[in-house]
Amino acid sequence: MLEALKEKVLKANLALPKHQLVTFTWGNVSGIDRTSNLVVIKPSGVDYEVMTAEDMVVVDLFTGEVVEGNKKPSSDTPTHLELYRRFKDIGGIVHTHSRHATTWAQAGEDLLALGTTHADYFYGTIPCTRKMTPAEIQGEYELETGKVIVETFQKRNIDPNQVPAVLVNSHGPFVWGTDADNAVHNAVVLEELAYMNLFSKVLRPGLGSMQQELLDKHYLRKHGKNAYYGQ
Amino acid sequence: MLEALKEKVLKANLALPKHQLVTFTWGNVSGIDRTSNLVVIKPSGVDYEVMTAEDMVVVDLFTGEVVEGNKKPSSDTPTHLELYRRFKDIGGIVHTHSRHATTWAQAGEDLLALGTTHADYFYGTIPCTRKMTPAEIQGEYELETGKVIVETFQKRNIDPNQVPAVLVNSHGPFVWGTDADNAVHNAVVLEELAYMNLFSKVLRPGLGSMQQELLDKHYLRKHGKNAYYGQ
Amino acid sequence: MLEALKEKVLKANLALPKHQLVTFTWGNVSGIDRTSNLVVIKPSGVDYEVMTAEDMVVVDLFTGEVVEGNKKPSSDTPTHLELYRRFKDIGGIVHTHSRHATTWAQAGEDLLALGTTHADYFYGTIPCTRKMTPAEIQGEYELETGKVIVETFQKRNIDPNQVPAVLVNSHGPFVWGTDADNAVHNAVVLEELAYMNLFSKVLRPGLGSMQQELLDKHYLRKHGKNAYYGQ
Amino acid sequence: MLEALKEKVLKANLALPKHQLVTFTWGNVSGIDRTSNLVVIKPSGVDYEVMTAEDMVVVDLFTGEVVEGNKKPSSDTPTHLELYRRFKDIGGIVHTHSRHATTWAQAGEDLLALGTTHADYFYGTIPCTRKMTPAEIQGEYELETGKVIVETFQKRNIDPNQVPAVLVNSHGPFVWGTDADNAVHNAVVLEELAYMNLFSKVLRPGLGSMQQELLDKHYLRKHGKNAYYGQ
Repeated sequence: MLEALKEKVLKANLALPKHQLVTFTWGNVSGIDRTSNLVVIKPSGVDYEVMTAEDMVVVDLFTGEVVEGNKKPSSDTPTHLELYRRFKDIGGIVHTHSRHATTWAQAGEDLLALGTTHADYFYGTIPCTRKMTPAEIQGEYELETGKVIVETFQKRNIDPNQVPAVLVNSHGPFVWGTDADNAVHNAVVLEELAYMNLFSKVLRPGLGSMQQELLDKHYLRKHGKNAYYGQ
Repeated sequence: MLEALKEKVLKANLALPKHQLVTFTWGNVSGIDRTSNLVVIKPSGVDYEVMTAEDMVVVDLFTGEVVEGNKKPSSDTPTHLELYRRFKDIGGIVHTHSRHATTWAQAGEDLLALGTTHADYFYGTIPCTRKMTPAEIQGEYELETGKVIVETFQKRNIDPNQVPAVLVNSHGPFVWGTDADNAVHNAVVLEELAYMNLFSKVLRPGLGSMQQELLDKHYLRKHGKNAYYGQ
Repeated sequence: MLEALKEKVLKANLALPKHQLVTFTWGNVSGIDRTSNLVVIKPSGVDYEVMTAEDMVVVDLFTGEVVEGNKKPSSDTPTHLELYRRFKDIGGIVHTHSRHATTWAQAGEDLLALGTTHADYFYGTIPCTRKMTPAEIQGEYELETGKVIVETFQKRNIDPNQVPAVLVNSHGPFVWGTDADNAVHNAVVLEELAYMNLFSKVLRPGLGSMQQELLDKHYLRKHGKNAYYGQ
Repeated sequence: MLEALKEKVLKANLALPKHQLVTFTWGNVSGIDRTSNLVVIKPSGVDYEVMTAEDMVVVDLFTGEVVEGNKKPSSDTPTHLELYRRFKDIGGIVHTHSRHATTWAQAGEDLLALGTTHADYFYGTIPCTRKMTPAEIQGEYELETGKVIVETFQKRNIDPNQVPAVLVNSHGPFVWGTDADNAVHNAVVLEELAYMNLFSKVLRPGLGSMQQELLDKHYLRKHGKNAYYGQ
C-alpha cells in the first residue's frame, strides 16, 4: 500500500545526508496520505545506506498503530502524528539535529527574520518552544513534544503554513511542508538561516527583525495569489 | 542571437554551485553585450542541474522587455539592468545569498579592507546600502534596489570599477566585473573576505581598515598601468 | 594472533579520516581482547593511506610490552592501557585532535549537556581534566595522562560507561566505547557536540546544563533495560 | 636543470588546493638547492590546474635574477629569497592566504601555543609582524616584507627552525620547513591551529599560553636528539 508515498518518503530521507543535515541516523522524514489518514515514516535507528522503500513504516494518523511494515517506526512518530492532526494542511515533516538549527534550539532562542533569504520562505520569526515540564517529559514524551509545538504556534498566533518550522527547546528543529520533499527543502533553508543569523548576531549583538515591509515583499512575491517568482 | 554570450552566462551561472556560493536556485548571473545593449540573464527559479544555454533570457537594457527566450528572466533583472545602465564599464553581474556576505548584509555592516586579500581585488571598503524605504519596497522594488546601490556609490564617492561589489542591506551581495566570469571571480573573493573579516573582528573588536599605503600597493600592483602581478 | 581484532582496529582507524576527525596521523584507535588481556593499537606516525592490518601492534595490557608487530605502537599507548586497566568494561579507545573537541580542551572547559543530541549518548557533563603537574609531565607522561583521566572520573564521581569521553586539558579528546567501532562513533558525536555547544554558548553566554529530566529521558530511552530506541 | 626539485616544488604547489589552503592562485611554494644557491618557485598568477614542472622558475638566491624558465616568478619571490638568505637551514617556503591564518594576520595578533597540537610542531608563539612603514611599502615592498619577518624573529629571539611560520600583519602566513613538502605540512598545521585557537579564545577570552613544561614535552618528544615519536 501507498508504494508511491513510500518511495517519496524514502527519497526525502536519503536527501538528508545529501544535504548534510544528519549525522548517522539522527533524522527522520514522514509524509501523509490525507485521503486514508495514513502516515509513512522512517524506521527507528536504521542506517541511511541500507534503507529501502519497504523499510518505511505505515502508521495510522489517529491511533499511531503500525498498519504495515516489519520495522518499528521512528521513536519520534507521536510528534509527527500530533503535528499532522493539528496542522491540517501540511503533507510532510522532517526532524533533524542539523548543526546550526540545533545550536539555536540548545540556546533556547527564536530565529528572527533578518533578511530576504528568510522572508522568501518563512513569514516571520521561527519560534523556539518553551522548556517542557517534568510531567510532560516523564509522560508521553514524544506526543507532548508535538503538543508543545502546537501550543507555541497557537499562543504566539503563528500560522504553521506561513512559518513551516520550529525549534524544540534543548532538542532541535522540526520542519514541515506541503509534502516530504518540500519539508526537506525548508529544512535546508532553516539550516542556512541558522548559520547566517548566528554570525549576523555576532557582528551586531541585539540585531532585531528586518523591516515588516521587506518581509511582506519577499514572502508575498513567492507565496500567495500575487506571487511572481519562478516560471 | 548572442549564442556565445549565452554560453558564457550559462557557464558563469553553473560556476556558482561549483564555488559553493548558492543553495538551490538562490543566485543569478548576467552578462551584457554593450554593442547591442542586450543583457543575457538566468531564468527565474530554474534548477542549475537542468539549465541550458537556451534557457538564458535576452532582455533589452532600456525597456527590460524580453527580446528572446521562452522563460521568465530572473526576478532580479531590473536590479541588473539599473546597474548596467549606471555603471557603464561593467560587463557581468552576479547576485547570490552566499553565507558570509549575506551574514554581513543582514547585520547591515560595511566590509572594511582588513588585509591584502581585499586589497588585491577591491580598492577600499565594500559598502552596505541603507535600508530601503517602505515606498521603495512597495513600488518597483527590484528597480529601486538597483537605484539604492547606485546612490550608495555616488553618495560615498566610490568608483564601481574599483570596488566591484555591494552588500544590499537585509538582503545579500551584488557583485560585478568586466564580464560574467570576472563577476563570479569577484563573488568568490567577496565570500572569502566576508568569512575572514567576520572572525578578524571577533579576534579584535573595533578593528579598523588597513593602512592606505598597503591598500594602494596591493591594489595597484594588480590593477592599472603600473601593474606587475601575473604573466 | 588476534587477526579479527586487528582488522577491526584497522577499520576503526581508517574511519577517522573518513569522518574528518584527523589531520595527517593525529589520531589513534585501539581495541582490547579481554580474554587474553592484549591490546591492538595503531603504530606511531604511520600514514592512514598505507596502513594495513599487519601494521597493528599487539601490546600486553599490564606490562605494555609489544607481543607482536614490527612497528612501534602509538606513543599514546600507555594512556590507552591505563584506561583499559581502570575502566574495565570498555572495549575500544580513540584519541584524536578533532577541531572542536580540541578547541574546548585548549580552553580547559567542560562540555555541558545542552541538548538531546548529547543526552542520547552521554549521561551528563563531559569533563575536562585538570592541568597536569610539571612532575607528571616530566615523568611517565603518557601513563600520567591516563591517570589524570581516571582521577577526573573518580573525583567527580562520573561513570565512564555512561560518559565515554574526556577532554584532556591543553591537549584533546580521548573517547571510548564497547569496542573500537563504538568508540569512533562516540568520537563523531563528541565532535558534533563540541561544535554546537561552542556556538550555543556564543548565542547565550552563561548557558547552563539542560534539565535533568530531559537528560534522563533521552539517555534512558536509548540505554539500559527500558530502552526503546532502534529496532 | 634542477628537474627533481622542480617536480618536488610543483607537487608541493599542487598540494595547496588539495589541503584547501588556497583559492584561485593565492599561494606559492618554493624550494632551494643549497649547493648551487638556486631557488625554484611557482610562476606568478598561473592556475594550479594547468601548471607543469616546466613552468617552475629558477632564480638566483642573491641576485633574484631568473636563471631558467619562460614565465615570471611569483611576485612574492623577493620575500622568499630574503628568508632563504637569513634562515640558513630552511629548504622550502609556502605563502598562502589560508582562511584562518589570514584571519589572525588581519587582526594583527600572535598565535599563542594553546595545546599539544601546536607543541608537536611549533616551539612557542607564532609571531605576527609589526605593520610595515609607508617607506617599506612604497620601496622594495616584497623584499621589505622578508626583512620585517627576519626582524621579528631576531628582536623576539625566536629560532626560525623551531617556529617555522609567521603571520605577516594585514596580509597572511609565510611558513617554511626542511623542504617544500615539509613547509606545506607545516602550513596545514598552522591552519588547524589558527582555527582552533580562534574558538578557544571565543570560549575563554584572555586565555594565555600553555604550560612551558607541556610545550617542552611535546615539542621535544618529536624533535631533537631525544625524540621518540614515529617509527
